[in-house]
Parts: sequence; structure tokens; C-alpha cells
Amino acid sequence: MRITFLGTAGSWPTKERSASAIALDTDRELVLFDCGEGTQRQFFQSSASFMRVRRVFISHFHGDHFLGLPGLIQSMSLNHRTEPLDLYGPPDAKEVFDQVLKLGYFTLRFPVTVHALSPGHSVDLDGYSVRTAEAVHPVPTLAYRLEEGPKRGRFDGEKARSLGIRGPDFARLEAGESVKVGDNLVRPEDVMGPPRAGRAIVYSGDSAPCPAIEKLAYRATVLIHEATVGAELEQEANQWGHSSARQAAEIARAAEVQELFVTHFSSRYKELEPLETEAKARFVDSHVARDLLDHLVRQP
Amino acid sequence: MRITFLGTAGSWPTKERSASAIALDTDRELVLFDCGEGTQRQFFQSSASFMRVRRVFISHFHGDHFLGLPGLIQSMSLNHRTEPLDLYGPPDAKEVFDQVLKLGYFTLRFPVTVHALSPGHSVDLDGYSVRTAEAVHPVPTLAYRLEEGPKRGRFDGEKARSLGIRGPDFARLEAGESVKVGDNLVRPEDVMGPPRAGRAIVYSGDSAPCPAIEKLAYRATVLIHEATVGAELEQEANQWGHSSARQAAEIARAAEVQELFVTHFSSRYKELEPLETEAKARFVDSHVARDLLDHLVRQP
Repeated sequence: MRITFLGTAGSWPTKERSASAIALDTDRELVLFDCGEGTQRQFFQSSASFMRVRRVFISHFHGDHFLGLPGLIQSMSLNHRTEPLDLYGPPDAKEVFDQVLKLGYFTLRFPVTVHALSPGHSVDLDGYSVRTAEAVHPVPTLAYRLEEGPKRGRFDGEKARSLGIRGPDFARLEAGESVKVGDNLVRPEDVMGPPRAGRAIVYSGDSAPCPAIEKLAYRATVLIHEATVGAELEQEANQWGHSSARQAAEIARAAEVQELFVTHFSSRYKELEPLETEAKARFVDSHVARDLLDHLVRQP
Repeated sequence: MRITFLGTAGSWPTKERSASAIALDTDRELVLFDCGEGTQRQFFQSSASFMRVRRVFISHFHGDHFLGLPGLIQSMSLNHRTEPLDLYGPPDAKEVFDQVLKLGYFTLRFPVTVHALSPGHSVDLDGYSVRTAEAVHPVPTLAYRLEEGPKRGRFDGEKARSLGIRGPDFARLEAGESVKVGDNLVRPEDVMGPPRAGRAIVYSGDSAPCPAIEKLAYRATVLIHEATVGAELEQEANQWGHSSARQAAEIARAAEVQELFVTHFSSRYKELEPLETEAKARFVDSHVARDLLDHLVRQP
């Protein structure tokens, strides 16, 4: 899996940062979390192609999180896309997506399906599921957890050899077939460890610190949490439905995630090192996201 | 007057070029011609401020010419704008501007007035007028001519001295007052040349070569004309309502403009020098526009 931070600005873009958008390559398909203005152009600066985006999950309908959608969809059409696109958002999503799909003159050349999700809703997709939780923000906002299905356990080559498996049978057994050794049947489960949990990526959208997101993030591989401000502005930010870097890190620690990326920085922060230092002080595996940063998420 | 090319891409942005937008500082106010996706961020890369934009003239409602408007207006609101904003567009403008003003959750904190203009329409503004012409494009599209009011003629200091004007009277006469020299009254018109035409900037929007635009551009100081392609793709481009660099230069020459800037380049052109060469061969004062290029328009 690969995460590409396409835009890490909060509220409005800056010279250095584009509006919110995160591309996630699940290895099977490319999905997008939020799509702020400028996302299609950020794709051209990255190693990913916007034509491959199969699904878009919008956290909420403040402009900096979805105003890149009309341009993205229109450019997909102009570039002769025919593959379907699915759009997901909070309960009020249908009305806004309908507006997005009718803005100005263009011909939609591919099927677009719109999904309004409730908090706690789960959808099963191609090799992964997406579950939602309700964020704390002035408008309906969802956090998302994208999780792969469980993976097969590790193949124990030593044990296979000790059971007499040799040559082509070795590869067949590793691929999941049962094989015979003399009169004995050796089944894959005899030489595989227990199934392993798939990787899970959680994205907070915009939110004040919130138990529902902490719960959603439980033992996630990567938590991407908003950190609009530093701790010095925490109280004001919380009132507006935002978090500080310190609070994001506390959620990461409480949820026992493996890694935290903070994003959605207020334009007042030109340098992000202080926010990273603040987060690391609470949760050591914290990083600040930067526009066009690629992060490979390995199977633990 | 200063022109800032904020975006010079055609159809969709590229790594090098943002979608169509041109800022024009009339010395009294800042106006915008078209506002493609990403315009607000381009402002941060330029020396102009989007908060100063007083009016926006949209040529037509293909996405690459107006999808930056919702974000621009929402960011103006978030930044506590209170000054009015006027939006102008072709006859179908009201419906689209209404959609633009209702996209997602935000509070509009300043008055926005929407104007639908017909071809040939002229509006008188603060020290300048804007006149429209109908472009040749598959959807209703306007070209715009922004022209300053006539300027006073040049003050002839030699002549003033020869009429006996001295000391403070000299400055008063130059400022437009009549002054007495003995029994004679010397009036400003006695020492001023004839009124001079104001500067005129013409923007084609998207169009195939078109007599109405040639007429609109007559003796303009600067013509900004689209040149989506080079001459090698001219016929195909004309069918889609676009021009080549060669055709833009022919219009500039026929209209007797002082300078031509071509813009709105197809993403197939990574290098623009061939388009500039092609235009200069027909009209020597031709230039290719580039993102963030500033051009000072001097009083001739």
C-alpha cells in the first residue's frame, strides 16, 4: 500500500501546501480521501495518475475538502475515461455530489455512483472494507478506516521440508494447494502460521479530539489525523472542531497505532518542525505530512 | 496597468501550467478574466492578492475557465472580506453563478452581484469600460475589451512659459486650472495636446478565429488571444472552437494591436518556443504567456 499526500493545507491553500487530498494505492485500486481544489494538478506533480482513481471518500463539505472534485471529474471525462467512479460522503452527500456533477458544460462519459454513508456504516470493497465514524466538526463529517481483509499466515518452509515436501510440491503447497507425500496429505494450514490482520489506514477528516475516532483508529497501521494548530491554540481550535498536533498524538498513543501522520495545517505555520516536535513528544512515531510525500505502508 | 498571467493551460492543468486566469490591475482596482481551478493558490505565488479582486469576468462555463471561483469566494469569506464582488459572464451566467455560490457549507460575508452580459454589451466602471463580443466556441462565450477613459493631452511646458506662466501658476495650470497673466486668461486647453486614448486590453476567451474579436481588438494596447495549438493542428482546433498561434497572430496584425500575448496551451505542448516562433512570424510583437508572468502596460 502506498499513501501519497497530495494536499496538506487547512482551510485554504498556501504557496507551499495545496488543499486537503490523500491518495491511497491499496495495491488493487487507487482511492482518494478528500479532494480539495487543485487535486488534479497535484497528481501531475506526483507519481500517481488521477485516471486510476476508482473511489473518492469525502470527509465533509467544507470547500477545502471537496472543491477539486468537479475539475477532477471533468478532466477524467475529457481524457476519455470509461471506468466507473464511486463517490462516498457523509449523510448530506447526495445533494452536494449532485451539484458537483452539474457544474457548467461538460459531458460525463463514465458512470458515477454516489453513496451517502452514516457514522458506523461499513462497506465491503475489492479486498478491503471501509468503516466510518462521526467526527466532531460543525458540519456532518466522517472519519474513515480502510482495512484490508486478513492475510494468510506465513509459510513455514522449514516445517514443509521436515514433512518431506520437495520440488514442485513445495511451490504448490505455498500457493495454497494440499499435496501428497506418500500416503499422507499435507494441507497448507499444516505449514502456515495463523492468519495475519490486514493493514488499516485511518483518516480523521476535520475533527476536534474525539473518542469515536480513537476507537476507529484502534491498532491501525497508519493514523492520518488533522492537526490544524499547535498546542498553543488548542482551545480555540477545539471550539471550531479542530485538533492540535499534541492532541492528534495523544489519540495515536491511546489507539495504539503504529504510525501517525498529522496534516491539515493552518496557513499560519510556515515551518512544520515545531508541530512535529510537539507530536513526537507524545507519540514517538509521529510525522508531519508534506505535499507530495509518498509513504509505503508495509505489511507488519 | 499590470497584467499577471495566473494560469495559461488549456482544458486541464499540467505540471507547469494552471488553468486559465488573468489578473489585471487597472491601477484603481484588480479584475480577473476567468478563474480556473487553482487560481486562489496561484495568487499566493504572484505579487497580487486575491483579496483585492473587485470584479471577475468569466468568458464561458467550461470547467477550466471558472472552477476556481467557488474556492476563491469561500477563501475571501474565510479571510473576512466585506467589500462587494461583482461577477460577469455570458447570457447563461446567472444559473451557473448561483450554483457556484451554493456549493457546500460556507457563510458568504460580503455582497456578490451577478451580471449576465450579451455580446455587444458595454458596462461603465471605475475609470474604465468593458465591452463584449461573441466568440466562436461550442458554448456561449464572450470576449472582453477593457478600456480606460480618454486621458488628458500632454502638458506643453515650453508653450506655458512662452505665454508668461511662472512659479505656482505653472503647477496650477498643469493641474487643470485657468490662470491669469496680466489681463489675459490662460486656459489648460491652450497648453495641452489633444486628449489621448486610454489603454485597452482585449481577452478572447476560447474561440476559433473570429471577425467579432478582430473588431473588438481594433488598435488595442494588448490583445490576449487563445492559441490552444500550433498551425499543424489548426483545422481540428477550429472545429472545436479554438485557434492556433498563427491565427492569433493574424488577428493581432489585422486588428493593428500593439502587442499580442497567446495563452491557453494544450497539454501536448511542453515547450512553448515553437508557438512563439510561429506567432512572431506573422506578428512580430507576439509573446507566449507563462504562468506568473507580470506584464506592465505603459501609457503609449
